[in-house]
Amino acid sequence: MRKFNFSAGPSMLPLKVLERVQAGLIDYDGTGMSVMEMSHRSKPYEAINAEAESLLRKLMAIPDNYDVIFVQGGGSTQFEAVPLNLAHNSTCTKGDYIVTGNFANKAYKEALKYGDMRLVASSKEDGYTYIPATTRSDFREDADYVHICYNNTIYGTRYTCPPDTGDVPLVADMSSIILSQKVDVSKFGVIYAGAQKNVGPAGVTIVIVRKDLEDKASPLCPTMLKWKTQIDAKSLYNTPPCFSIYVAMEVFRYLDEIGGVDAIQKINEEKAAMLYDYIDSSKLYSNPVKKEFRSMMNVPFFTPSPELDAKFIAESADYGIVSIKGHKLAGGMRASIYNAMPVEGVKALIEFMKKFEKENA
Amino acid sequence: MRKFNFSAGPSMLPLKVLERVQAGLIDYDGTGMSVMEMSHRSKPYEAINAEAESLLRKLMAIPDNYDVIFVQGGGSTQFEAVPLNLAHNSTCTKGDYIVTGNFANKAYKEALKYGDMRLVASSKEDGYTYIPATTRSDFREDADYVHICYNNTIYGTRYTCPPDTGDVPLVADMSSIILSQKVDVSKFGVIYAGAQKNVGPAGVTIVIVRKDLEDKASPLCPTMLKWKTQIDAKSLYNTPPCFSIYVAMEVFRYLDEIGGVDAIQKINEEKAAMLYDYIDSSKLYSNPVKKEFRSMMNVPFFTPSPELDAKFIAESADYGIVSIKGHKLAGGMRASIYNAMPVEGVKALIEFMKKFEKENA
Repeated sequence: MRKFNFSAGPSMLPLKVLERVQAGLIDYDGTGMSVMEMSHRSKPYEAINAEAESLLRKLMAIPDNYDVIFVQGGGSTQFEAVPLNLAHNSTCTKGDYIVTGNFANKAYKEALKYGDMRLVASSKEDGYTYIPATTRSDFREDADYVHICYNNTIYGTRYTCPPDTGDVPLVADMSSIILSQKVDVSKFGVIYAGAQKNVGPAGVTIVIVRKDLEDKASPLCPTMLKWKTQIDAKSLYNTPPCFSIYVAMEVFRYLDEIGGVDAIQKINEEKAAMLYDYIDSSKLYSNPVKKEFRSMMNVPFFTPSPELDAKFIAESADYGIVSIKGHKLAGGMRASIYNAMPVEGVKALIEFMKKFEKENA
Repeated sequence: MRKFNFSAGPSMLPLKVLERVQAGLIDYDGTGMSVMEMSHRSKPYEAINAEAESLLRKLMAIPDNYDVIFVQGGGSTQFEAVPLNLAHNSTCTKGDYIVTGNFANKAYKEALKYGDMRLVASSKEDGYTYIPATTRSDFREDADYVHICYNNTIYGTRYTCPPDTGDVPLVADMSSIILSQKVDVSKFGVIYAGAQKNVGPAGVTIVIVRKDLEDKASPLCPTMLKWKTQIDAKSLYNTPPCFSIYVAMEVFRYLDEIGGVDAIQKINEEKAAMLYDYIDSSKLYSNPVKKEFRSMMNVPFFTPSPELDAKFIAESADYGIVSIKGHKLAGGMRASIYNAMPVEGVKALIEFMKKFEKENA
């Protein structure tokens, strides 16, 4: 039986995508081989690479003055690639950071190695339960960039609109929100996202770079971390993670077929509303996030005690609910309800929550 | 119809492995989900990660004083990771390089950014047709390491035994030779290999590090390029390329079932002998490599003219022979006959070569 997998990532993929991948696993599209076996310099793979890019451009309405690349190393590698690429060709980058969660904090910490970094705002003291307000004057006018994490996977918060940074380019980690809702790409200098939440299997990272920011790397930036390396080579500088990019392309195709980001955003809003409404109405469960900043993708919730949380996690497994345990930094439970989580999955979770509440009132 | 795919990488995988992966694609081992959907912190994935490591240790007889990690970024990322990790904790690494091909040369060029690099020997002037001889006294006694590429994918050469570097740690790029023949790991300080030739799908790189070399990184080494980051986390510091590691595990299982590296080495010797014998006996084809250094994995060959090479490549496609074109730097043809290329594939290639020779004598 297929489980309802609430993992924060890697996470569910649309069943239809998995079925297509399975059908073509040994012989893709009449090529007589698996995509896993294909030379990345072959025509069939080049077609996959090109279609993945063009579908992503379409789905996100990425303007022409942005390049799109598929790289390796995950969001964590971009924590270092950002200061090394946006270095105004010096060895001392000037970056402003807003710290709204664990990964935003990691990004800030990694950047400290590469120049003059400033912590502009943080919600750490309050358990990362909100997004701190900022205005344009909070940022240094001569900063190379401002870095934010748009959706905080562990604590379940998100930006409702990008902060105003004036002329300073805004860099956003969108790993856990990409393709789940409309985003105005033109408001950002750089967007990056690990694939393993809304895009495809782990092992590929999307980087979207405004063209005027492409050629500012530090002389110390490793060639393989330099965006320009892959931009110039159309993501084919070295052997790419071909199969992960192929599955991502199938996810893009599927998303396009069902109506694109507009359509999935509606479903995501419906799923999140259902779950938050129930949590708010319940006497057993609580969500600590300020309502306006609640994530549509990651919904943490708690019973009154860690013991009861543990009981919830153990018993829910019998109902096909898996990976519902909260991150070790946050505790409790967390339902990650990305694009591929069907409405029925959220309904099944709520049903179980109700039953558990009744039994443990 | 399944093709005989002579690609230099990504390249063929054993059919049995593809069948197993296909069977479990939507529901792996009764978990109710695909490996692509699995949290990397879940028990089923941790079991895959652990089995991949332990099988690789068994197959290569890796001694206990070595750590094994699975990372992202390909061999190209290791070209930079090597000087950044083996830096005696300084910002100026001292590396000696032997340049025997395109990738060995790239590794050398990338390293130049990170310290005092020396080109000890090169076969570039002679079209990379042999492995230059070296003795212990050719290397600097205080070098941090000596770097070699053990098998040169483009030019079809390989080391017959590792060079004697005395007490200086030997670092080897084994991307196109790993698991194809016995290697005495204890002769090396570090071994790395992209997966996409003999191991699994592109997107995962194996790094094997002798424990005494693990903690020598430059302060400028990005966290994600530092071997110690993943060694301490058992390859789970951040989200790994889970699916690629899973397929690699299935390849390791299969290799273990058929008798391990000893067994596959015999088959590889047989395949290579068959092909080289035919080339040497033919009047149409030639291989430019000095016999003692001929690669068992990559067999370049040429007709007397580029026009005839092009005709060969075009016509062979009708016989199920694909990706036989040589690398653009070398021209001609190249048959990459990695572990997963069946004996019948090599036979089919020779049959076609004979036919083509007859028709174009």
